[in-house]
Amino acid sequence: FSGIATFAHLKHVKCLTTPSELYDIAVIGAPFDTAVSYRPGARFGPRAIRHASSRQTSFRGFNPRANINPYQNWATILDCGDIPVTPMDNAVALKQMTAAFTELGQRTTKSGVISRPRLVTLGGDHSLALPALRALKEVYGRPLRVLHFDAHLDTWHPGKYPSAWESEQAHFNHGSMFWMAGNEGLLSNVTAGGGASVHAGLRTRLSGDGWEDYEHDSEQGWVRISADDIDDIGTRGVIKRILDSFGKGEGEDEGGEDPVYLSVDIDVLDPAFAPGTGTPEPGGWTTRELIKILRGIEGLNIVGADVVEVAPAYQGAGEETALAAAQVVYEILSSMVK
Amino acid sequence: FSGIATFAHLKHVKCLTTPSELYDIAVIGAPFDTAVSYRPGARFGPRAIRHASSRQTSFRGFNPRANINPYQNWATILDCGDIPVTPMDNAVALKQMTAAFTELGQRTTKSGVISRPRLVTLGGDHSLALPALRALKEVYGRPLRVLHFDAHLDTWHPGKYPSAWESEQAHFNHGSMFWMAGNEGLLSNVTAGGGASVHAGLRTRLSGDGWEDYEHDSEQGWVRISADDIDDIGTRGVIKRILDSFGKGEGEDEGGEDPVYLSVDIDVLDPAFAPGTGTPEPGGWTTRELIKILRGIEGLNIVGADVVEVAPAYQGAGEETALAAAQVVYEILSSMVK
Amino acid sequence: FSGIATFAHLKHVKCLTTPSELYDIAVIGAPFDTAVSYRPGARFGPRAIRHASSRQTSFRGFNPRANINPYQNWATILDCGDIPVTPMDNAVALKQMTAAFTELGQRTTKSGVISRPRLVTLGGDHSLALPALRALKEVYGRPLRVLHFDAHLDTWHPGKYPSAWESEQAHFNHGSMFWMAGNEGLLSNVTAGGGASVHAGLRTRLSGDGWEDYEHDSEQGWVRISADDIDDIGTRGVIKRILDSFGKGEGEDEGGEDPVYLSVDIDVLDPAFAPGTGTPEPGGWTTRELIKILRGIEGLNIVGADVVEVAPAYQGAGEETALAAAQVVYEILSSMVK
Amino acid sequence: FSGIATFAHLKHVKCLTTPSELYDIAVIGAPFDTAVSYRPGARFGPRAIRHASSRQTSFRGFNPRANINPYQNWATILDCGDIPVTPMDNAVALKQMTAAFTELGQRTTKSGVISRPRLVTLGGDHSLALPALRALKEVYGRPLRVLHFDAHLDTWHPGKYPSAWESEQAHFNHGSMFWMAGNEGLLSNVTAGGGASVHAGLRTRLSGDGWEDYEHDSEQGWVRISADDIDDIGTRGVIKRILDSFGKGEGEDEGGEDPVYLSVDIDVLDPAFAPGTGTPEPGGWTTRELIKILRGIEGLNIVGADVVEVAPAYQGAGEETALAAAQVVYEILSSMVK
Amino acid sequence: FSGIATFAHLKHVKCLTTPSELYDIAVIGAPFDTAVSYRPGARFGPRAIRHASSRQTSFRGFNPRANINPYQNWATILDCGDIPVTPMDNAVALKQMTAAFTELGQRTTKSGVISRPRLVTLGGDHSLALPALRALKEVYGRPLRVLHFDAHLDTWHPGKYPSAWESEQAHFNHGSMFWMAGNEGLLSNVTAGGGASVHAGLRTRLSGDGWEDYEHDSEQGWVRISADDIDDIGTRGVIKRILDSFGKGEGEDEGGEDPVYLSVDIDVLDPAFAPGTGTPEPGGWTTRELIKILRGIEGLNIVGADVVEVAPAYQGAGEETALAAAQVVYEILSSMVK
Amino acid sequence: FSGIATFAHLKHVKCLTTPSELYDIAVIGAPFDTAVSYRPGARFGPRAIRHASSRQTSFRGFNPRANINPYQNWATILDCGDIPVTPMDNAVALKQMTAAFTELGQRTTKSGVISRPRLVTLGGDHSLALPALRALKEVYGRPLRVLHFDAHLDTWHPGKYPSAWESEQAHFNHGSMFWMAGNEGLLSNVTAGGGASVHAGLRTRLSGDGWEDYEHDSEQGWVRISADDIDDIGTRGVIKRILDSFGKGEGEDEGGEDPVYLSVDIDVLDPAFAPGTGTPEPGGWTTRELIKILRGIEGLNIVGADVVEVAPAYQGAGEETALAAAQVVYEILSSMVK
Ligand SMILES: [Mn+2]
Ligand SMILES: [Mn+2]
Ligand SMILES: [Mn+2]
Ligand SMILES: [Mn+2]
Ligand SMILES: [Mn+2]
Ligand SMILES: [Mn+2]
Ligand SMILES: [Mn+2]
Ligand SMILES: [Mn+2]
Ligand SMILES: [Mn+2]
Ligand SMILES: [Mn+2]
Ligand SMILES: [Mn+2]
Ligand SMILES: [Mn+2]
Repeated sequence: FSGIATFAHLKHVKCLTTPSELYDIAVIGAPFDTAVSYRPGARFGPRAIRHASSRQTSFRGFNPRANINPYQNWATILDCGDIPVTPMDNAVALKQMTAAFTELGQRTTKSGVISRPRLVTLGGDHSLALPALRALKEVYGRPLRVLHFDAHLDTWHPGKYPSAWESEQAHFNHGSMFWMAGNEGLLSNVTAGGGASVHAGLRTRLSGDGWEDYEHDSEQGWVRISADDIDDIGTRGVIKRILDSFGKGEGEDEGGEDPVYLSVDIDVLDPAFAPGTGTPEPGGWTTRELIKILRGIEGLNIVGADVVEVAPAYQGAGEETALAAAQVVYEILSSMVK
Repeated sequence: FSGIATFAHLKHVKCLTTPSELYDIAVIGAPFDTAVSYRPGARFGPRAIRHASSRQTSFRGFNPRANINPYQNWATILDCGDIPVTPMDNAVALKQMTAAFTELGQRTTKSGVISRPRLVTLGGDHSLALPALRALKEVYGRPLRVLHFDAHLDTWHPGKYPSAWESEQAHFNHGSMFWMAGNEGLLSNVTAGGGASVHAGLRTRLSGDGWEDYEHDSEQGWVRISADDIDDIGTRGVIKRILDSFGKGEGEDEGGEDPVYLSVDIDVLDPAFAPGTGTPEPGGWTTRELIKILRGIEGLNIVGADVVEVAPAYQGAGEETALAAAQVVYEILSSMVK
Repeated sequence: FSGIATFAHLKHVKCLTTPSELYDIAVIGAPFDTAVSYRPGARFGPRAIRHASSRQTSFRGFNPRANINPYQNWATILDCGDIPVTPMDNAVALKQMTAAFTELGQRTTKSGVISRPRLVTLGGDHSLALPALRALKEVYGRPLRVLHFDAHLDTWHPGKYPSAWESEQAHFNHGSMFWMAGNEGLLSNVTAGGGASVHAGLRTRLSGDGWEDYEHDSEQGWVRISADDIDDIGTRGVIKRILDSFGKGEGEDEGGEDPVYLSVDIDVLDPAFAPGTGTPEPGGWTTRELIKILRGIEGLNIVGADVVEVAPAYQGAGEETALAAAQVVYEILSSMVK
Repeated sequence: FSGIATFAHLKHVKCLTTPSELYDIAVIGAPFDTAVSYRPGARFGPRAIRHASSRQTSFRGFNPRANINPYQNWATILDCGDIPVTPMDNAVALKQMTAAFTELGQRTTKSGVISRPRLVTLGGDHSLALPALRALKEVYGRPLRVLHFDAHLDTWHPGKYPSAWESEQAHFNHGSMFWMAGNEGLLSNVTAGGGASVHAGLRTRLSGDGWEDYEHDSEQGWVRISADDIDDIGTRGVIKRILDSFGKGEGEDEGGEDPVYLSVDIDVLDPAFAPGTGTPEPGGWTTRELIKILRGIEGLNIVGADVVEVAPAYQGAGEETALAAAQVVYEILSSMVK
Repeated sequence: FSGIATFAHLKHVKCLTTPSELYDIAVIGAPFDTAVSYRPGARFGPRAIRHASSRQTSFRGFNPRANINPYQNWATILDCGDIPVTPMDNAVALKQMTAAFTELGQRTTKSGVISRPRLVTLGGDHSLALPALRALKEVYGRPLRVLHFDAHLDTWHPGKYPSAWESEQAHFNHGSMFWMAGNEGLLSNVTAGGGASVHAGLRTRLSGDGWEDYEHDSEQGWVRISADDIDDIGTRGVIKRILDSFGKGEGEDEGGEDPVYLSVDIDVLDPAFAPGTGTPEPGGWTTRELIKILRGIEGLNIVGADVVEVAPAYQGAGEETALAAAQVVYEILSSMVK
Repeated sequence: FSGIATFAHLKHVKCLTTPSELYDIAVIGAPFDTAVSYRPGARFGPRAIRHASSRQTSFRGFNPRANINPYQNWATILDCGDIPVTPMDNAVALKQMTAAFTELGQRTTKSGVISRPRLVTLGGDHSLALPALRALKEVYGRPLRVLHFDAHLDTWHPGKYPSAWESEQAHFNHGSMFWMAGNEGLLSNVTAGGGASVHAGLRTRLSGDGWEDYEHDSEQGWVRISADDIDDIGTRGVIKRILDSFGKGEGEDEGGEDPVYLSVDIDVLDPAFAPGTGTPEPGGWTTRELIKILRGIEGLNIVGADVVEVAPAYQGAGEETALAAAQVVYEILSSMVK
């Protein structure tokens, strides 16, 4: 409870304006929430997640499951603070975030163990995945594969929102950013020879009176795992499906080195575990299930990640949502360092 | 978040005073909570559930599990508003609710697909099931079978409450209404040749120092499934037991067409999932489990249903309880339309 | 607590799409909050204010201070529902609101007592005053005078916000809309011969190291009353200063008939009375003081009004903020009908 | 924070069933709330007030204003626990409370300083004032005068509630109990030669389109002081009006010895000070004002008192409402002992 | 909701100062929280658990799973109130608690069925287990075995906390008390021939960059079961491991009669189930799982128990954490009486 | 809402370990709360106040009342972070805080305008005033005068707490630290020729059955202003009494240059304005009154200040308490810079 609140008491550097300070992994906030369709407030997500990470320290940071202390290892991890982003003009905000991610992702690494630093973004609403993917495509010179935990598809054509809202700028929102990413060629799923991206934890209602949303999603090269599939196949089964999709199933190996973007919408959890979010959907996973699955996919080559849609105004006094998000970040960092 | 708050943005009609407006399914609120033994506040349940249903729309209402969009189909579903009900005299309130349910249940249907409209009540405390059953017995001319999700039996003899509370009127309360319903011949379980009704999710403490409560319950023709049976038999096992009791197990068919009243006390969920209720009991089901079970029993002939005991003053800022209730209503509507 | 939640149980009509239904006063929601600089959430303001008005009824609606029951009088008051407004593109939203206000303000009145209907908007963030003023200028063919209750000036030049946020669209925000209104000639204060507009309740910090903000404000023709002026002059003194500015002081009369727009930012109240708002400032008025002042200015010719910046996620479980806002609307309606 | 929660750590005795244990003042809870028209929950009021009184101890209980420590003085004060009262049948509940108050009020006192013990009731909803007055009329053999702090009149004819709620039993409710009391001859105001009772803190809306409610109230012998009268006359002015009405103004003395029932509806406070109540009305007094006024009327001969309508589910985490109520009880006890 | 709040409406006796009043099981509060490393507030835990036990009564207290009503049986169970304990000097507090537990544990029992009364402590922070173990060692004249449910090890060497906090007194804290207990010979695990103690529900981060904490823990004679072991082995598997460790596995019997201290840190539950605690860790058990496990170990010879770390300021309005704790106490009492 | 949370976005330096970084005013947190008698949680006060200061920026920081922007002026103000302080041993904590304040207060100033830097502490519980006064006595070589805003005296002899709590260490607590300070000669009030210190806002209950506490307080050289004195003399009257006591009344001048320590216990405000505190007392000042008074005493020579007892777990979702505290700090900084 003591000290200025950075993530896990990591050293704070304003990385964007301090290019001389090198790092291997940057934790950065994107206090942006003006592309949401229901409850706003995720602009306070970065602050809430940092607050909830107070009990994570390098001193007591060993992760028994991963056999590693991510805060005492080869990787220099910094808390780079927040991207300055306007809450009043999403077109400008999109540019601001794209520029920031590109700048931060292209830096030289401190350790030299990896060629480009890895980025972990604290959201903010989910639309920030679009500028993140634009930046990573630029940095790596190739499209990425996405592992997407969410109750929602987020691959909706902007036209799927009621027409009263039509506007060019409104295309960029927290339900359409993966559709835009696919369209822009940022995802390998839509590229010839590219592998599929994966949704996990879905339990959304669909548009209209049929399967059109799923068909469009499949056409864009996505594989879907529903929230209640876990009742039948368990966390092990979910892990297996993900790894199989990424060519990392047992006995396989090719494709496993594809750069992966891991995107965790906290609403993948049930509202009992994460009420502090904008578009909660009953019937989600428990935090224990999500953590178990995250540990199971540690072998993927995750070059960027986000934890999004944490809207603390809707969480309880015990801040369970932000605690879950901070734990997710910790597990991601453990995998990135491993 | 926009617009006057009806359930799922359904058209609002004051059905009781507008007999000319036909429907197939009526969603109706019963803002009644003066028959409760502990925390009051369920009178605000209908409002809370409507609020929490804001993100349900006909536009995006397709239920992949049920392969149906209940809001774009043969059935005309209306939000009929609330039954006017006094909070100061339960004898009068009981009459008001009985009259209202009878009136609404006897109307001609819009589509003609079914002969009498189906009723889905947003509670309100659980005692409203008594006037609902009285009305449905009247409408269908035969006793009903009840599928009852709850932590509690609700078949207690009124004498099971401490004697200081004795009064004729107090017999009508949220722990005794199924005892009264049985006594009045509204349930087929107590009728010769009638099939059993079913409790599921039980985890209540019992009266006295023995099994008397369970024995009385069995004598009234009820079958019981405990909350933690699910640990051993899973959601599939629970579904199977229910369907078997209703004569809808695999290979069977007779009895499956009995008119069924589905009564969901939200306290069947664990307090982590539904703290916003009057008599929470630790150790309940998750929302995902309940939804899974509800989907599993979609073949029953549900002619009336309620979702009760939502007391929003006790839920969190993220309104997880009302969200769960709104989802339950959506699943029930999906089954009714299917 | 019973019934679909309209403001004060007024009849609900979707006025925008039902031109045949006439009214004298329209209560309309503007669930818009993407022009705010700090805590969002005012999009749920209209819903919260409607909820909190539940105990206002025409049956028991007599206002002893005003000697009138605004709900049983010459004026037909409707709850026109909400303006559809996109949360993702403020340029579009501005057009949507301007069109809606213009449409609603130009209708014929039901009673004929007044020539054009009066509009009372439930906000939503304060920027909605710009489209409201554009519409009223159009309807009345002349600029208006504004009576503005707020902790903040809201006449800031958009350049007063840090440069990283610069964008054409961001000019339209909840701190600059009166600057824009003045610039566009919507306010009589900046017109030759026009009278001043008035701020009351100010206690904001200013830009830079001097009085520039106040100087600009004065140049735009505004008069300022600070929050703590009330300690010295009382509510009577505040009323007197307002009426004097509007040419309605004792013995005067000219100018009193100017069409007035009354804009109440709920943050004029102290955070103890209205924590549910986006940019709270300690040291404000009590609800009793604000109500007293509103009653004192009932003689003004108020043709439009708003109550804005109610963000219910930040209010207490007792919903004190929305209650205060609902009371303010009631007092405004009383004055409009009188 | 330590120990079983009685009021101010007073000795707990189940007085109703322990007639041998004498006292001078009984603090007793009435966990009753089924006669309310809006938000229920005052049944938890006694518990909340006891909890909030934790920091009141006899050890540190000296009241500098009153120059007395009510917990170290001639009077034996007990916490008599709660009256058993059914939440499901108001007719029975009314009898239970009447019997309990009569029993407790007729006991011999411990000290002999006063002839009959004084009763301080922790509510519970305001309707409990009716059984309290019935009991005190019985005990003292004469009608009482009431000093009533409230936002509402509570002298409404039951017919003033909409007809759908009509029932004999519903006449007994938290808006009509003083009308019933007057009708039954419990109040001296309606008796020939009897003095007026007083309302203070009023700010309610009235029925219909005129002054009928006030006229009826006056006919019943009540004097009214409005909440915002305090702006003009201050706390001193309010005190003076009360004392004048009770024949205790300066230079007068007759009538001052009439037995007085002091009834404090916590909604006399503004919702900022007491959000935890059932029918909050913006624009009320501050806690400091109420305390000041209570201290000013210490000379009255208060034989019974209540603090009602504390509904803790609606208060904040800081329990400000119950704290205010506990302080009111402390001030009343100080006056009773003095 | 009625009556002075004791645990489950048990008779309240100030046992420490009333030696004449005998009992078989004492429920006692330890409102102590000044040995915590993060969020304080567990001093209000005893009060919160008592409040949440309101719906437990002897009248309706039969536990179907255990086939017993612990409140109507051979054992006299009292609520002994709280131990007086200073919040400002932990050295003194430690002495106060040790003296109190020793005094209460040495009394003669009411029934004579057992030789010494059993103690169930409502915490308070976890450090109270040290004085409890000191007392029980004294009472039974032999070391105890501990069954410890917790997210954390609580066997840390005090030196594992950052050096700025070094102080003799600070050794006594809620992460080190089992290390101290082992050192003092209170635990049989560290005694020659003694059996192991067991942790269950672990999911903590460890010190440094390796397995040192676990190694130290093993050296102290502890067996560890992790929170997510349950995903693989289920509640049955967890029960089996515990019983095997205690020599109560199927076919075994020796060692099963060792006196056992059962210590339940409520943070063994996931923050969704128990947010009201000081050091929450995402990924814990559900309440249903914990209850199931508690029921499975009913055959152990539990002579003392605690439920600790309930900090109600962080729980929701529905008080789910305290409800879970009250249920745990009920299950422990059922096992103790059985 | 953007960026790492320092007070008012001031530059963060770990001043204790970075002696090279000079400043004129240090804002420093003391996350200490283990010397409190009731609700703990003020250890999170520094974090909460920093959070609530988010909208204070140097860009928009001009204080119209003081005619100064404290963040753009001669003084370099730093956020020095938090003092490391153990939560488990108050004797050690007292040493830690004394050392830290002494170190920080003795540094050379950046500007040279003042000889020693001024310290503003964010509490933490009130006992931190003792180490602060020890440090300032050391720095200035003379005793200080204290201006103390509080509901409580805080000059209690430790023996005034019940004897069960007796311990040397417990003497240091949040009700006795000014008694200790007086005893140690840190206050000029108890020195020959020294001027009085002043309490303002008192409304506490006293020990025993008489005026002993006040007599002791007077003997220690304190002057008292009660909370409700303001009703009679207004904020102007309160200011005048304070200035008169400090020899700064109109026409006087001597003594005005005494170094003053300004200590603001947030519980001086009414619980409606500051529920987030440990020992709330109904009947306090409004935030507006406190601010007005603080502005009135700007001429005093304040060399150190604190804002204490902010316990955010008890404030509302709108964080009104921390907002008030952040505003108090802003007013103090304005006065210090002026
Ligand atoms: Mn999502
Ligand atoms: Mn998403
Ligand atoms: Mn139930
Ligand atoms: Mn039920
Ligand atoms: Mn404002
Ligand atoms: Mn504004
Ligand atoms: Mn009232
Ligand atoms: Mn009343
Ligand atoms: Mn733990
Ligand atoms: Mn522990
Ligand atoms: Mn204080
Ligand atoms: Mn203090």
